[in-house]
Amino acid sequence: MPNILISNDDGIFAPGLKQLATSMLALGKVWVVAPKDNQSASGHRKTMHRPLRANPIYNVFPPDIVAYAVDGAPSDCVAITLMGLIDEPMDIVVSGINSGPNLGQDVTYSGTVSVALEAAIFGLPAVAFSLSSRMIDADYGPSDSWLRQITAQTLQNGLPHHTILNVNIPPLPARELRGIQITRQGRRDYRDILDERIDPFGKPYYWIAGTEPGGDVEAEGTDIWAVNQGYVSVTPIHLDLTRHEFLSALQAWEW
Amino acid sequence: MPNILISNDDGIFAPGLKQLATSMLALGKVWVVAPKDNQSASGHRKTMHRPLRANPIYNVFPPDIVAYAVDGAPSDCVAITLMGLIDEPMDIVVSGINSGPNLGQDVTYSGTVSVALEAAIFGLPAVAFSLSSRMIDADYGPSDSWLRQITAQTLQNGLPHHTILNVNIPPLPARELRGIQITRQGRRDYRDILDERIDPFGKPYYWIAGTEPGGDVEAEGTDIWAVNQGYVSVTPIHLDLTRHEFLSALQAWEW
Repeated sequence: MPNILISNDDGIFAPGLKQLATSMLALGKVWVVAPKDNQSASGHRKTMHRPLRANPIYNVFPPDIVAYAVDGAPSDCVAITLMGLIDEPMDIVVSGINSGPNLGQDVTYSGTVSVALEAAIFGLPAVAFSLSSRMIDADYGPSDSWLRQITAQTLQNGLPHHTILNVNIPPLPARELRGIQITRQGRRDYRDILDERIDPFGKPYYWIAGTEPGGDVEAEGTDIWAVNQGYVSVTPIHLDLTRHEFLSALQAWEW
Repeated sequence: MPNILISNDDGIFAPGLKQLATSMLALGKVWVVAPKDNQSASGHRKTMHRPLRANPIYNVFPPDIVAYAVDGAPSDCVAITLMGLIDEPMDIVVSGINSGPNLGQDVTYSGTVSVALEAAIFGLPAVAFSLSSRMIDADYGPSDSWLRQITAQTLQNGLPHHTILNVNIPPLPARELRGIQITRQGRRDYRDILDERIDPFGKPYYWIAGTEPGGDVEAEGTDIWAVNQGYVSVTPIHLDLTRHEFLSALQAWEW
């Protein structure tokens, strides 16, 4: 029975986390170590300027699951668990189910993805799951069989060094999900705006606001296209950010 | 005269930021928008759960430089500036000089690099500069000519879409710096440990601690190798994390 570590970025009480933990009970022994509150768009972080707390959580998950809430970033949850908070060797780390998609360059901001990246740094296979709906109480049920299939396949096949799977599931009823597409990262088109307001004392403050981002929905083979078409998108991503195909052109600059 | 936006992750009062801003005065008009305090290992973030403040800062930088301190992440500083905090079109974003290297998979945690990645999302060329020394009051003077040369070249040649330069400078006297090497991202070997302590009330808390990370110093052509050899390392990195060479093997799993 594999040991499965679960975390997320929506926090320990998020419905998507409970769905993922419950689904994983079919595959192995499950531990949950998740942020004590919402850490969306938190990025890949390492908290070193202050100590972290890890409090046991009762009554939230099925009784076979040991759970902790941590006052740090999603990646901190993975790091402290694998460095010894839990005295068991983990076989895989799964993250989510995130409330909202992680498509295109969203992955560079995503706390959900950072969980998986941190696991990869520790040498473990990892999968990040997101449901492409912003409703925190969306129906996570149709995801169940896909969570289990993709995690089981990852346990069986393993992943290359420093590589994880980024999975995005369309918010559709089970019968409308069209199957899996292996995809590449697409390009997001952000529509953020700066909302300047004046406080009661006459001084400005700023909200980063805006509407749901778009992207290259027409670009076949991208994660954004696949989810838009009703497919479960599976994108292999890795920790090597080098733009290899630009190396020779850069070498030719007048250094 | 190009408009140059500067930020960092060590905060508005870091000596490396002042060196970078001062060096950039030779190339154009300079704005500084930086976190009000240290945000090391902060990752690529977008602060949307609360508003941000941007306070004008006086007396820290040369008089020609307009500067703001923001109570957010490094990437927030770039986003709010480019969305309208400063009503001028920027031509380039430069970040640093970070106190400490950003080598190998450090780039996924790095606030310094996240400044440049955020600029790339906004379609601007960007360069992240780090001095490979952990001394906050290290000698940033020898970096000056390299900061100017690399930024001038980037302004002149431009960069491919969604691509930035990650520059690491060895902490050596000017005459010992051996020149520029164009490099690929190397592999870090982290040596973190979990330091568990018991508080005065009998409850545990945890520090993520450890010693300076190692890496593939022997792997010629990597950023880690170059800095170890006394070269200024210039690595092109981008926002596409897809592991393209694994797509076909992943397609062949039993889906």
